[in-house]
Amino acid sequence: MRRRSSLHSTDPGADVGLLSPVRAGSAAEEATGDAAFVRGMLDAEAALIRAQAALGLAPASAAAAVTAAAAEPGRFDARDLALRARSGGNPVIPLVADLTEATRKRDAKAAPYVHRGATSQDVLDTAAMLVASRALRPVLDDLAAAAAAFGRLAAEHRDTPLAGRTLTQHAVPTTFGLKAAGWRSLILDAHDRLTAVRGDLPAQLGGAAGTLAAFGAFAEADGAASGRSDAGPRLLAAYAAETGLAEPVLPWHTLRTPVADLAGALACAAGALGKVAADVLVLSRTEIGEVTEGAGGGSSAMPHKANPVRATLIAAAARQVPALAAVLYGSLAADDERPAGAWHAEWQPLREALRLVGGAAREAAELAAGLRVHPQRMRENLGSTGGLVVTERLAAALTAFMGRGEAKSALARASRRVAEEGIALDDALAADPALDGLLPEGRLRELTDPTRYTGSAGALVDRALRRPGPAATSP
Amino acid sequence: MRRRSSLHSTDPGADVGLLSPVRAGSAAEEATGDAAFVRGMLDAEAALIRAQAALGLAPASAAAAVTAAAAEPGRFDARDLALRARSGGNPVIPLVADLTEATRKRDAKAAPYVHRGATSQDVLDTAAMLVASRALRPVLDDLAAAAAAFGRLAAEHRDTPLAGRTLTQHAVPTTFGLKAAGWRSLILDAHDRLTAVRGDLPAQLGGAAGTLAAFGAFAEADGAASGRSDAGPRLLAAYAAETGLAEPVLPWHTLRTPVADLAGALACAAGALGKVAADVLVLSRTEIGEVTEGAGGGSSAMPHKANPVRATLIAAAARQVPALAAVLYGSLAADDERPAGAWHAEWQPLREALRLVGGAAREAAELAAGLRVHPQRMRENLGSTGGLVVTERLAAALTAFMGRGEAKSALARASRRVAEEGIALDDALAADPALDGLLPEGRLRELTDPTRYTGSAGALVDRALRRPGPAATSP
Amino acid sequence: MRRRSSLHSTDPGADVGLLSPVRAGSAAEEATGDAAFVRGMLDAEAALIRAQAALGLAPASAAAAVTAAAAEPGRFDARDLALRARSGGNPVIPLVADLTEATRKRDAKAAPYVHRGATSQDVLDTAAMLVASRALRPVLDDLAAAAAAFGRLAAEHRDTPLAGRTLTQHAVPTTFGLKAAGWRSLILDAHDRLTAVRGDLPAQLGGAAGTLAAFGAFAEADGAASGRSDAGPRLLAAYAAETGLAEPVLPWHTLRTPVADLAGALACAAGALGKVAADVLVLSRTEIGEVTEGAGGGSSAMPHKANPVRATLIAAAARQVPALAAVLYGSLAADDERPAGAWHAEWQPLREALRLVGGAAREAAELAAGLRVHPQRMRENLGSTGGLVVTERLAAALTAFMGRGEAKSALARASRRVAEEGIALDDALAADPALDGLLPEGRLRELTDPTRYTGSAGALVDRALRRPGPAATSP
Amino acid sequence: MRRRSSLHSTDPGADVGLLSPVRAGSAAEEATGDAAFVRGMLDAEAALIRAQAALGLAPASAAAAVTAAAAEPGRFDARDLALRARSGGNPVIPLVADLTEATRKRDAKAAPYVHRGATSQDVLDTAAMLVASRALRPVLDDLAAAAAAFGRLAAEHRDTPLAGRTLTQHAVPTTFGLKAAGWRSLILDAHDRLTAVRGDLPAQLGGAAGTLAAFGAFAEADGAASGRSDAGPRLLAAYAAETGLAEPVLPWHTLRTPVADLAGALACAAGALGKVAADVLVLSRTEIGEVTEGAGGGSSAMPHKANPVRATLIAAAARQVPALAAVLYGSLAADDERPAGAWHAEWQPLREALRLVGGAAREAAELAAGLRVHPQRMRENLGSTGGLVVTERLAAALTAFMGRGEAKSALARASRRVAEEGIALDDALAADPALDGLLPEGRLRELTDPTRYTGSAGALVDRALRRPGPAATSP
Repeated sequence: MRRRSSLHSTDPGADVGLLSPVRAGSAAEEATGDAAFVRGMLDAEAALIRAQAALGLAPASAAAAVTAAAAEPGRFDARDLALRARSGGNPVIPLVADLTEATRKRDAKAAPYVHRGATSQDVLDTAAMLVASRALRPVLDDLAAAAAAFGRLAAEHRDTPLAGRTLTQHAVPTTFGLKAAGWRSLILDAHDRLTAVRGDLPAQLGGAAGTLAAFGAFAEADGAASGRSDAGPRLLAAYAAETGLAEPVLPWHTLRTPVADLAGALACAAGALGKVAADVLVLSRTEIGEVTEGAGGGSSAMPHKANPVRATLIAAAARQVPALAAVLYGSLAADDERPAGAWHAEWQPLREALRLVGGAAREAAELAAGLRVHPQRMRENLGSTGGLVVTERLAAALTAFMGRGEAKSALARASRRVAEEGIALDDALAADPALDGLLPEGRLRELTDPTRYTGSAGALVDRALRRPGPAATSP
Repeated sequence: MRRRSSLHSTDPGADVGLLSPVRAGSAAEEATGDAAFVRGMLDAEAALIRAQAALGLAPASAAAAVTAAAAEPGRFDARDLALRARSGGNPVIPLVADLTEATRKRDAKAAPYVHRGATSQDVLDTAAMLVASRALRPVLDDLAAAAAAFGRLAAEHRDTPLAGRTLTQHAVPTTFGLKAAGWRSLILDAHDRLTAVRGDLPAQLGGAAGTLAAFGAFAEADGAASGRSDAGPRLLAAYAAETGLAEPVLPWHTLRTPVADLAGALACAAGALGKVAADVLVLSRTEIGEVTEGAGGGSSAMPHKANPVRATLIAAAARQVPALAAVLYGSLAADDERPAGAWHAEWQPLREALRLVGGAAREAAELAAGLRVHPQRMRENLGSTGGLVVTERLAAALTAFMGRGEAKSALARASRRVAEEGIALDDALAADPALDGLLPEGRLRELTDPTRYTGSAGALVDRALRRPGPAATSP
Repeated sequence: MRRRSSLHSTDPGADVGLLSPVRAGSAAEEATGDAAFVRGMLDAEAALIRAQAALGLAPASAAAAVTAAAAEPGRFDARDLALRARSGGNPVIPLVADLTEATRKRDAKAAPYVHRGATSQDVLDTAAMLVASRALRPVLDDLAAAAAAFGRLAAEHRDTPLAGRTLTQHAVPTTFGLKAAGWRSLILDAHDRLTAVRGDLPAQLGGAAGTLAAFGAFAEADGAASGRSDAGPRLLAAYAAETGLAEPVLPWHTLRTPVADLAGALACAAGALGKVAADVLVLSRTEIGEVTEGAGGGSSAMPHKANPVRATLIAAAARQVPALAAVLYGSLAADDERPAGAWHAEWQPLREALRLVGGAAREAAELAAGLRVHPQRMRENLGSTGGLVVTERLAAALTAFMGRGEAKSALARASRRVAEEGIALDDALAADPALDGLLPEGRLRELTDPTRYTGSAGALVDRALRRPGPAATSP
Repeated sequence: MRRRSSLHSTDPGADVGLLSPVRAGSAAEEATGDAAFVRGMLDAEAALIRAQAALGLAPASAAAAVTAAAAEPGRFDARDLALRARSGGNPVIPLVADLTEATRKRDAKAAPYVHRGATSQDVLDTAAMLVASRALRPVLDDLAAAAAAFGRLAAEHRDTPLAGRTLTQHAVPTTFGLKAAGWRSLILDAHDRLTAVRGDLPAQLGGAAGTLAAFGAFAEADGAASGRSDAGPRLLAAYAAETGLAEPVLPWHTLRTPVADLAGALACAAGALGKVAADVLVLSRTEIGEVTEGAGGGSSAMPHKANPVRATLIAAAARQVPALAAVLYGSLAADDERPAGAWHAEWQPLREALRLVGGAAREAAELAAGLRVHPQRMRENLGSTGGLVVTERLAAALTAFMGRGEAKSALARASRRVAEEGIALDDALAADPALDGLLPEGRLRELTDPTRYTGSAGALVDRALRRPGPAATSP
């Protein structure tokens, strides 16, 4: 029996994943939790003073003291910061107070250098980019794993026929290989987009209104040699290097392309995984039964059920991310040098989108690794329309012999018999006097064999698989 | 110095409000946290067995044992449940296991009655409705408080003139009373809608596929007198009564009107508060300065700043809720007797919408209570166009004397002088030979006095304030 | 003067429904087109002057002239107005110019009374409410027809068993009657909400900044007896009466509850219809085949296909409306007395939501009227798991005899044989030595008969059908 | 045969731009109207048969006949197609009928080759990509023009100081040049993203279920030399070349990355323009007055008003596009080989997003070209806080002399006098005994001069302007 209390007694409203099983326990969840944001903010503060020290704008000892204070375990309490964030509207203000205090204990002279010249948004935006970069690493790995597994399935089932379905109805045959190759292709698209965005995530530094003026003011007050107008850009470069993020051309307090790019790539990834899930859900239906998740979810009440739980959780995530992306896109229209609301409205949706995509990617990797494919069932379903699934092909073939109108009539007659009498299409056609002698029986059987009407599916799988999978994700 | 660790060590990805200061520490946050959902699920389970006992479908002793087990403090761990929720896709499955175990320790014979006949969705949906009902209580109280405070401001400033602004430009005068009466009116609208929805929140009970069959099956197996087909509806009524929620006509596993209604009322409330915030943000601008939040947010770098933090946080919430509502509305289109994803996609957005609206309502109540109004500044701004703000009135008056065309020309001449020479409109008109003698000077002064052109503003305030404020929120 | 008809034949960018087949040719489309908005604006202008005349604020002859001018066919060109709307940002400005000109031709003295005292938003908002009211009439009728048809299906198939499906898997049996009763119930919910909203749609009148001041100014200039501050509210009442819309307590230029209520009710309706469509799409799948749309959509390439086109088009509409509602909800947060953008962003989404819901309702009425139900196929599918669909019931029954653990083991053994050997569940259980003699064979057959395990489905249908259908829609 | 022109004069529900002035009359509107989609579909059909002819799969004479028939003016009626689209769910089916008929009149033998082997989605998706490509051309040109104009403003006002504003309050000074450079930068970001997406827009070709099988079937039936499995990919390449679009690796009927990429780039562009509009709206406020749109929108009632109409219309567009993008992203999760609804839900939102962005880009180009900047007003506003806007700088300077605590106290004292007594900050500081002699008066004046505290703004402008503007848009 668990002995700890049900929830940390001072975090009464915490969200610990109960309502979001898709991400509970995932690496992306941990990388995007409030503790990770606190870590990101502390990393930003430490990077800032180290960058200043590197340019001679702060003593090296101060940089060391702040860096050490920022690394103190157990010093910075996310819940406490959250509560204190309210009065100023963001968590950086109380964090700076705590970091200053922690620094003062180590080196009283270092304390005034904490956050010197910066604005809250410099630190929170940089933290968000660090969190995104860190959270995307396992996401990319999971996407790569899912793509690899689907690539294997595509190769293995290159020629496994199943019914192509459009608007819920059997259309013409396709192959499971082509379906899996499509899944891989979409996931690689998402991987490409997330990788590109991740490589461009910028550090944020601009000071109160994006002019970097305060860094110059302090330099000037310190009598530093650094010219005022030059100090800013140089510091921006040094700071970006310390954070490991990209250097922006301009402070982007209200130039939110980086957030928009993240929104788009995350929505793209959610949709790609959502497509896979949608297909798995259809193919898993009791009446269809063409695939089974490796380990289906049980039901306490109905022991026979094996629910496609992973696909369900991915589908649930895919339904949420576009709306979150819309909030992020909406926040681009931010007025002034810092907007009253549009910026604040980004924080939670960005985090939520990251963790939903992260969770969905984890589920997809597991789903892909364990997916069981049932070619026999595919073949049975393919035959369930008595051959009607290949009428397209027959129409082409018969037209060559009989003209379009006659061919159409003959197919309509035969289709009616298939539907009403339950006989097979080839038998119905063989018995049609209008076709008498036109087609040798073997040719008729071949033309009505759904497994022999998969067109260019194999060639398409081959060309899709020639696209290389992703290289290892950079740290 | 805080001595506890930075985050409960086993909840590494927890969200404790760091990125959502609007709700950090609010009653709505606590009422919607994962612990509150665990509480709701346990309440649902206990209600279910008590209802069964009331109908003779379970022993009273079992009901007592389950109720007691469900109330054990520290027994049910939200994080642990979250992690175990993944395999089955929802947290009820592990919760039932834990509750069964806890019940067994008290009364081995009672254990099999835990969750008997129910499906996970019965419990989670009921919990969500309980959480919504509980969370809305402080929300309604805060809305009522905000409406009352704005009502007082409307009465006090019934005749305080300020510039009416359209498309960012001064249009004609209005009064601060009318503005505040409008805010009150919108908040009362939101209060009405939330109250109506809250009163209708239904319990959920349907069993595996909404037929209530299992309750009959167990009754039948127990040899209970209850006829199979009758047991269901009677149990539904008893269960709803135990939960304190409304009795639905049908199980609503995929008939999601209650969730849609919540979505709409919450979006409406967020928008109403967002309107207030939008106005406060404009009126707080440095150049406008007509209102000030009681306690503005400070800035570490800029000691003179007093940011409208509450309005900012409300505005941030108002930007997020419509998108969450869209996810909830989108989930109405749920297939089958339980959809694979649409239901799961509701949980987090519903919670998030509740807590954002709850936090925004708290901020609004405080903002309303502390808002400082600056009539002098309003008057100065009203005069800043040199009287042009009343050209509408002058056009009407002069037209009566001179005809439309002449009046328009005269006003254009005068307006040009106002803009170019900086003289006042009444002086420009008085000096215009075309008006010579048409209007006595006193009348001209009156016609150009912006504070005397507020139309029906006062009467409108009066009629708006005749709408009664809300009664106390039911528990 | 323009002489061409209301839509110019060369309008090069027109949307005439090509990309929205769901609404092409529907009554809702016609009621929401640009021509209908022009009509609504003209109706608003005519109502305004008639209301002024009724209060002695304008001559009766002017009211007659404006009303006649507003009714001239072919006078007002939507495309031309659209092009001229750009410079002022809304179409009322050019419309007033054209209406003034048309009035002048009839009665030169009447011309100055056109639009006198009003603001563009008064006219456009009133027009939007008139359009909504008119468009909702056929929507409500179509919803009522769909509900009635589903009610008939529910009664007819009260006891028609089919598989209840959860997370895509067979769960336990249910009835088609219960499914259809649920559809009816949801549609009635939507009908209720739309009816309530439609009854409250308010006229808009406030003048430039919502104080109704200009009406007083003109009255004053005319030397009218009407006191300034009283004229406004009286005119508001008279105007509302002339339009046939509700009288608002306050001008609602930036108090957008009416738009929010419309958004919510429309999203609710779209979701209700989307649920029906989602079910029809699943049940229509080739492998399931339990329902067929009366007249399936054909395919040029595949003559055997009968696509569920109506359900598809409804589903497409249901995917769009929540996002449009989110835009409308987002526009509640409008600053000042008229916002720069939030108001303008409502127009197209509101129209689009109305016509999507209108089109979907039309499709639903036709779908409901023509839906073909295949009970035999339902029964076959219900049997496709070899009886596993009733394990819930067996678990209850066996537990009574053997205890929970033994019952579970026996069912697991039997289920395994069903899955692996393809034998029926009752046979597997009958052959199980552990059950020997516990259950008479007839009882076992009964317990494993899916068609006899539909629980309270019938009773639930009965109670759902007791809810009355809607009365006729008011004009 | 229909003889009327492409849009019928009585189309009663047409949208001709009345509710969307932002795009009325724009090139993007024309490029995205229903007539343009008809044109795109015809282009796709003609490209298909030409590609088949090029590979020997159809006679060259048939290609010529279809191409000529597709070019017949007035032959294809968008409204008529819209009405006939309903039964099959898409407009390609009736279009193919009309095109076949038109072709038959020219060359009876060519008729059977129309649309041969293709599926409706091949044609509609290709048309959508052609429409997007064509519509984006003027969009890119307008974005380039806006960026160029803002670049000129940035250079011209590189050193024009104005108040930096955060959370609606004056923070520290910045320059108008930096603001304009930021606008340019965002617009270039949008231009880059749209250009990249436009270059990748793929043709669509897959046949009924994406296997390209029918092309092989017809080739086979014709006895063509083309091997079945090879014909597909070769045809795909030839078809893409004929359309001028990119060749996809796989048919993308349900691999919707191209649509997602469009959605993201359009949302990004809408947000970028929305940011510019948001700033212009703030700076245009009556009380602020730092910029004026070249030709402000008039008001019939209030002759003095000059509304920022272009910014308003852009802002309205920016509020709608994110929601439309969310619908498009949501449609990625499409099941099977063609989904029942998700695909159909893309059409209208994609068109609407294209034309909203197109319209906003046009407005932005005009706004940028005509924007009037008022440096004098910027300077006055900058001084309106009596120097408090530079307290950040003073805090740095005084800290160097007095230590942090003393400096803070001195500033607080001075700020209080500024606020309460209305004196200037430099005078208040000069009069403070604690500062006596610390700073020469000239230095104090310099430190409190807001125009001399713009930090690195100039250097940032320079580096931002080094980013080259876009090259001419490819046709």
